[in-house]
Parts: sequence; C-alpha cells; structure tokens
Amino acid sequence: MNNFEYQNPIKILFGENQIENLSKEIPKDAKVLLLYGGGSIKQNGIYEQVTTALKEYKVIEFGGIPANPEYAILINALKMIKELEITYLLAVGGGSVIDGTKFLSAAALYKGDTPWDILTNNIRTTKGLPFGTVLTLPATGSEMNSGAVITRDETKEKLAMGGPGLFPQFSILDPTVIQSIPKRQLANGITDAFTHVLEQYMTYPIGALLQDRIAESILQTLIEVAPKVINDPKDYKAAANFMWSCTMALNGLIQKGVPTDWAVHAMGHELTALFGIDHARTLAVIAPSHYRYNFNAKKEKLAQYAERIWNVTEGTTEEKANAAIEKTEMFFHALDIHTKLSDYTANYEGTAQEISRRFTERGWNGLGEHKKLTPNDVEKIVTLAY
Amino acid sequence: MNNFEYQNPIKILFGENQIENLSKEIPKDAKVLLLYGGGSIKQNGIYEQVTTALKEYKVIEFGGIPANPEYAILINALKMIKELEITYLLAVGGGSVIDGTKFLSAAALYKGDTPWDILTNNIRTTKGLPFGTVLTLPATGSEMNSGAVITRDETKEKLAMGGPGLFPQFSILDPTVIQSIPKRQLANGITDAFTHVLEQYMTYPIGALLQDRIAESILQTLIEVAPKVINDPKDYKAAANFMWSCTMALNGLIQKGVPTDWAVHAMGHELTALFGIDHARTLAVIAPSHYRYNFNAKKEKLAQYAERIWNVTEGTTEEKANAAIEKTEMFFHALDIHTKLSDYTANYEGTAQEISRRFTERGWNGLGEHKKLTPNDVEKIVTLAY
Repeated sequence: MNNFEYQNPIKILFGENQIENLSKEIPKDAKVLLLYGGGSIKQNGIYEQVTTALKEYKVIEFGGIPANPEYAILINALKMIKELEITYLLAVGGGSVIDGTKFLSAAALYKGDTPWDILTNNIRTTKGLPFGTVLTLPATGSEMNSGAVITRDETKEKLAMGGPGLFPQFSILDPTVIQSIPKRQLANGITDAFTHVLEQYMTYPIGALLQDRIAESILQTLIEVAPKVINDPKDYKAAANFMWSCTMALNGLIQKGVPTDWAVHAMGHELTALFGIDHARTLAVIAPSHYRYNFNAKKEKLAQYAERIWNVTEGTTEEKANAAIEKTEMFFHALDIHTKLSDYTANYEGTAQEISRRFTERGWNGLGEHKKLTPNDVEKIVTLAY
Repeated sequence: MNNFEYQNPIKILFGENQIENLSKEIPKDAKVLLLYGGGSIKQNGIYEQVTTALKEYKVIEFGGIPANPEYAILINALKMIKELEITYLLAVGGGSVIDGTKFLSAAALYKGDTPWDILTNNIRTTKGLPFGTVLTLPATGSEMNSGAVITRDETKEKLAMGGPGLFPQFSILDPTVIQSIPKRQLANGITDAFTHVLEQYMTYPIGALLQDRIAESILQTLIEVAPKVINDPKDYKAAANFMWSCTMALNGLIQKGVPTDWAVHAMGHELTALFGIDHARTLAVIAPSHYRYNFNAKKEKLAQYAERIWNVTEGTTEEKANAAIEKTEMFFHALDIHTKLSDYTANYEGTAQEISRRFTERGWNGLGEHKKLTPNDVEKIVTLAY
C-alpha cells in the first residue's frame, strides 16, 4: 500500500425529502445564486422543491449551464456574482452544473488577470466562494469531491481544476430524482461510475487489500442494481444504491494508497471533443481496448476482477483476465451502451492518428498508472477500439 | 436504505514516516500538550519520532492516561491546560489516550460548573480545543471519529460523549507502530474492529447493498490479515491493511443508512466493569450468545455473512446462520481469544442477574437494533455466554 493523505469534509444529506433541509445548511443572510442546466428541473419538480425550501432567502437564478460546462457561459454567471454581490452558490444539477459551480466558486475570489488562468496555470484553489449542491443525476461523483472539468469552445480545450477550497459545503442526494431521468442518461451514469472505479482499480496489485475490496463492492452493487435502475427508476432501493455507489466511486476513498490509471478518460475526452459522443459512452469504447492492449501489465488485477466480480473461477490467469474484459463489454451492451467507435460514427478512420497527434502537440507526459504510454500506444489502443 | 447525514472532516496521514509531517499540521505558534499512556512510546521509538518532529514547538507532556481513560486523572491534565494556557492537544496512543484527549478538548472550552456534566447531561460539543492524534494501537477507530468513552472510578460509571467539535484535526496512521505491540493486544485490536463491523451489520436486511458490501470488505480483510499480523507484525502489507481496516470499521461510513445494534458493547462494558476483562474479549464472549439468542431477528444477515465471508453455500438459511456463528467463534479462538465467560473467571455465577439488575437500575431504554431487548433478555444472553 502506498502512503496517502485523505480528507473530505463534505456533509452529505442522503435520502427522500432531504431537499427540505436546504435552509438548515445555507446561512440565513446569504444572497444565493441558484445554478442549473437545461431546465429539466422545472419539469420534474426539483426546482419547486428547492425554491420552496429557500423561500426565506434572496435567490437569483442562472440557468443554461450545458453538459461539458462552457467557460463563455460561466463568465456571464461570474459577472452576475460580482455585480449582485452573491455570497453563496447553489448548484442544482448533475456533474456539469456542479463542476461549473466549482469554477465560479474559485473565479469569484480569484485575484489574477483572467480566471482562465486557474485552468491553464493549474492554480489550486484553497478558498472559494461557499457553495452547496443538490444532485439531480448520479454519475460523476462531483458532489463529493473538489475537482472539476471545464470546457472552452473558443480554444477547443477541456481542462481540469481543483483544490481543497472547492469541496461543496454540503450535497443533497435524494434518490427519487432519478425517476424522471431518461433511460439513456441512467445507462450513462452507471457506465460512468463503473469506469471511475475501474480507473482506480485496474492497474497492478499493490497489497491494498481493503481498497480493492471496497472498489469491488461498488462494482458489484452497480452490476446488481443496473437492470432495476433502467427498468424501474421508481425502485427506491435500487435508486438509492445506484446514487450512493456513484458518489463513493469518486469521493477519493478508493484511490488512496493505490496506483491509478485514468488513461481511459484521457482518450475518451478526445472522442467527445471530436464526435460529441456522450462522455460515459467514450469510456465504454476505450476501456476494453485499453485493457487488451495493456494486458500483461494488468492481467493480475483483471483476473482478480474476473474471480470476485464475475465469478470466473476456471482457467489460467490469462484466461480469467480475457473473460473479465468480455464480461465488462457484455455488461455495457446489456445497458445498450456500444463499445466500438464504429457503432457511433462512420467517420472513424484516422481518429487514432488524430488523437495521437493531439497528445503529442500538447506536450506529452505519459499516460496510465506507470505514466509510460506514448502517443504511439494511444494510436494502437484507439485503433483497437474502431 | 434509511436516510442519513454523513460528514467526517478528519485529515488522515497514512503510511511509514508520516510522523515526520507533524509540524505541517500543527500551527507554528501552538503551545502543545503531548498526551500519552503508560509510557510504551518511550521504549518503541514513537516518542522520539514525535518530539523530533516537534522540536521547534513549545511542548509540555502529560503521560499516564490508563486504558479506560479515568476522569480523575484527566482532571489533572485539564488543570495543566488551563494553567499553562495550552492551545493544542496531541494524543499519542491508542483509543484510550485519544478518547481522553477528546474529553480534554471539550472540557477545556466548557463553561459549565463541572466538566463531568458533559458526560452525565449528554452535552454535544460543537467546539473543542484543537487536537490531533498519532495512533499507536489500531483497534477502536477513535482516530477517525468524534466520539469518546470516559470512565469514572469514584462512581463506577463509564459514559459516552461526542459532537462535531470533537473530530481530530488530523490523525497520523503509521503501520510500523504495530511492530512493538504484544500479540495479546494485536488479537484484541483485530477482535475489537471485527466486532465494530458486526454491530453495524448483523441486524436485518434494509436494502443497503453497498454498505453491506463495504462492511463485508472490512471483515474479509481482517480475516485475511489476522494470522499475518499476529505472527509477523513486521509484515508491512498486513499491518497497513489491519490499521486501515480498524479505522474504516468505525469512521461512520458503514453505519450510514442502516440499523445498528451495539447491544454486544453494552453488555461487554459490564463484564469489563465487573471482572476487568479486556474490552475486546468481552465482545467475543457476548457476540455469539447474542446472535444465538436473537437468531430469528438476525438470521437473514447471519446467512448472508455465512455465504459471503465464510463461503458457506450449502443448507437452509438457518443452517447457514448457525454455521456463521460457529465460524465467528473459531475465528476468535484462532486468535487465542476465548468466547465463554467461564474461560475468564470462575466466579461467573450470578453475573447475568447482576448485569440485568444494573441495566434496570439505570433506567431502561431497550437494547439492540429494535431497542426492544429487556433486562430479562440481557439476563438470558449473558447466561448463554457462561
């Protein structure tokens, strides 16, 4: 087990009707900016629950934060925060709205020339404007961590930011919110959370027995509830386990003391940038090819995953490891998530070269748990994913 | 799954040589009171590591905090804190030293007549004197929670306290500290952590699939590392998993959203009070009898535990549940932990009646996950444990 530091001060309020408790978490004298996305919260009743809970507060609204939160749009919200002297941000949405709110929390107190520097210069935020979240789409885990990914259309960039000042003060997780989410997005959420766990688990054994088992617990729970969540999002038991699994998949706990990969995300982001494929689906495209290409480096963990998660007890390490990759593909297929790039676009030729070129151009630090994958490796992995 | 709130802001520094980082966590201008127990830290090198790391600080010492931290002794430390205007407490020890430090953190800022009121009047501490911990004995989990149990010899009381102001600011967990712990105490630590998990798991199914699996992960890891920890405490991999499992067993995570029992602890505390039996050993005495007596209420979870932890796949629910209790006893026996009261004392006759009488006398609120066990039930459970 590697040495580690762990701290996560976020207060989680989990369960039905927890939105009612919003006013216990936000200071009474706060001037609140309520941030949301495309407006689905106005159809599904969440907006009404939130505004009812905040009826004693001064609340200003900013809607329209898109999937892959866009810098140019967030800058408009930043102007409102400064002009109206907002003191508290409330994100009501999924990972994009929460990530956008984290950027605003940092930017509101940033003293430099332009807040884009926070992203390009890797500035860690130690103090942000206070904010809380009401999660409406389980998937990214952003509700219980201090990281964010922001997109800038003008420069075709998608960059990460974070810091100990960007933990939400609280996050409200009410599993009934999934009742109005379309099947397609539920499948994306399951796939996203599942791949988050794999990125922190599918590396090489390092003797972190407990972390391995907790990661496996999340995978097993997602597999168990996935068909129930898709077929009947009103099944509260399934919804609650789905929601808590997504949060636990990326709240920092399972990555402590272990090597992590994240190459699947790095390549997947490019597929979203090039083709607009949903983030989760790009992960399902890249992951199986990534594991096949890096088979020798990952086969011990793949075999452990085969045994413990998929009950593959016969065969050699290699046979179990191969079976594990196939079982993973079958799991995604059962969610109606395709695992080949050609399932999403006819124009896939040249994609591997283009992604490899982009990585080279940006300056290459190496990908994967050993930071040793080269642009040439990336080209081969993406080609395998055609 | 039940609704829940979860928040745990403690910073964990885990791994070899983390004690060196003490000075990064304590304010430079702090006047530190270093609290410890019987002085073993002066033999095993931990004292030297701590004082070396704090050589730039004003440090005053208070040693001699006993197992079951005693109020009368802590009051002497409290006088030092006030007279010397101590601003920061540092617990270097196991659960008793950490629990004693939590009491002092609360008492130092308490405005009432006598700090004993904090315990008798159930006063939740929202702000305490800041403190950190260096864990020297994995077992209780006190290093990552905000609760404490304090003993008062004068009145033969052992009472609990806590509150959001009593989280340590940081806890340092260096697995190499277990190298100098006697086998007997290592066995106690494993048993204590194992039973902590059982108290939060062995109730009735409530659809908290992920919490169940995380609890099972801790049990499986403890079972896997137990013989290695006992036979070779220099085995770093085993030590690290043992230490992190003990912390995860009682940092609040696995109890969220589920019913919890804690009747085993309530009865066990009385056996420590009456006979001076080590806390962990009293749990091993009570738990099997408690599960046999409450068999019908707990058989579904016992059978799940039999299947997933002990690989008992044949038989009815009842047969699996019975096998699970036997396997648990065998696990304790393999650690040289006896599971009958008569193994510890020849004077066990009348103990069940005495404990039942004590519970009645104190005013009875009911024990167990349903709060329905009566003093008469307690008498029968303790009799089964003879």
